[in-house]
Amino acid sequence: MALRHASRLLNHGPTVLVSSVADGRRNLMAAAWSMPVEFEPPRIAVVIDKSTYTREQIVRTGMLALNIPCRALADLTYTVGSVSGRDAPMPAQDKFDRYGVASFAGPELGLPLVEGCIGWLECRVISEPHTEQAYDTFFVEAVSAQSDPRVFADGRWTMDGRHPQLHTLHHLGAGLFAVAAETVQGKVLAGSS
Amino acid sequence: MALRHASRLLNHGPTVLVSSVADGRRNLMAAAWSMPVEFEPPRIAVVIDKSTYTREQIVRTGMLALNIPCRALADLTYTVGSVSGRDAPMPAQDKFDRYGVASFAGPELGLPLVEGCIGWLECRVISEPHTEQAYDTFFVEAVSAQSDPRVFADGRWTMDGRHPQLHTLHHLGAGLFAVAAETVQGKVLAGSS
Repeated sequence: MALRHASRLLNHGPTVLVSSVADGRRNLMAAAWSMPVEFEPPRIAVVIDKSTYTREQIVRTGMLALNIPCRALADLTYTVGSVSGRDAPMPAQDKFDRYGVASFAGPELGLPLVEGCIGWLECRVISEPHTEQAYDTFFVEAVSAQSDPRVFADGRWTMDGRHPQLHTLHHLGAGLFAVAAETVQGKVLAGSS
Repeated sequence: MALRHASRLLNHGPTVLVSSVADGRRNLMAAAWSMPVEFEPPRIAVVIDKSTYTREQIVRTGMLALNIPCRALADLTYTVGSVSGRDAPMPAQDKFDRYGVASFAGPELGLPLVEGCIGWLECRVISEPHTEQAYDTFFVEAVSAQSDPRVFADGRWTMDGRHPQLHTLHHLGAGLFAVAAETVQGKVLAGSS
C-alpha cells in the first residue's frame, strides 16, 4: 500500500504488536499506547517502557515494526504483553517460537512481521533522546506499509462486519479488549446561524 | 474519580474532543490522535495542528480539556472536527453556541466540559517546544478526571452493551467512526516450553 496511507492504519487507536530483532534474536510485545503524528511523511509516536527487552533492541538497531492484531489474536496480544522476552531460556525460545507465531520478513528492513495481523508497518526510529527518556515516547517513521485488503484498502478501513474476526483490538486494561465491532458515519450538523 | 485512573480513560485510543478557552472565548475541536504516556502522574500526548484555533488558545493559556465523546455524539464530533472556531462570526457564536452544546465548568481549571461525553480530563500543558514544533505533539498532565459511572468506574471500562449509545468512538477517516461495540477477554497462552 502507499506510504501516504500508512498513518491511517493507526488513526483509530488500535493496540499494536511491536516486533524487533537484534543479533539474530527476535522479540514481540504489545503496546496499547501509540498514535500517528503526521500523514506525510508517515510518522507515529509509540510508548515503549524502559523495562522492556524491546526497548533494548530498538535502541540498539533504530528499527521496529508495528503489527496490527485483530480479534482472532486477542489471546496472543494479551500474552506477549504480559511475558518479557528477556526471560526466554534460549534463542530458540523467543516469543515467536514459544507461542507458535508465524512471521514473514518485512520488505524494507527485513523485520519479523506477524502473520494473522491485518496491518504492518516497518519503521525507523527518529532519535529524540529527551522524549524517549522523559515520556518513554519514541517517534518513528514508517518505511513500508502493508494491510489485509479484506479490511483496509485504498487508504480506508472497511470494518463492516463481513470479517468480524479481523476487526481491531483496543486494550481497556487487564486483558480486556474493546473490539471495533461496528461503525457509524458522522454527519456535519447545521449551525444555528 | 482518582487521578491515578485518568490515563486509563484513553488507554484504548478513543477520539477526543479538545475544549479550551482564552479571553472569554471558548473553542472545541476533535482530535483522533492522542495517547497516554504515563499512569502516575497521569500524562498524555495529543496532536494539535498548527492551523487550529485551539492551538492558539492552549499556547496562550497552557490548559486544555479532553472530553471523551460516545456514539450518541458522532455527528457533533465530526462537525467540530470539520469547522474551525476561528471562523466564528462573533463571540456569541463559538462552537458550543453554534451547535447547541451544553457545557459545565471543570472543577480544577474551570475549563468548559462537554455534556453528554463519558469522560473528562482537565490538563495542564507541559512545555515541550521541540515536539510541539516538530510533531505538533503536546504533552499534558491531567489535574482533574471525571467519568460517567455507567461505563467507567473504579478505573475500569465496562462497555458490555447495556449502554450502547455510550460506547467510545474511534475515527477511521472522513467522518466514519469505529465504535467500541463489543469486548473480548484475552487469555494468557501456555508456552511451548
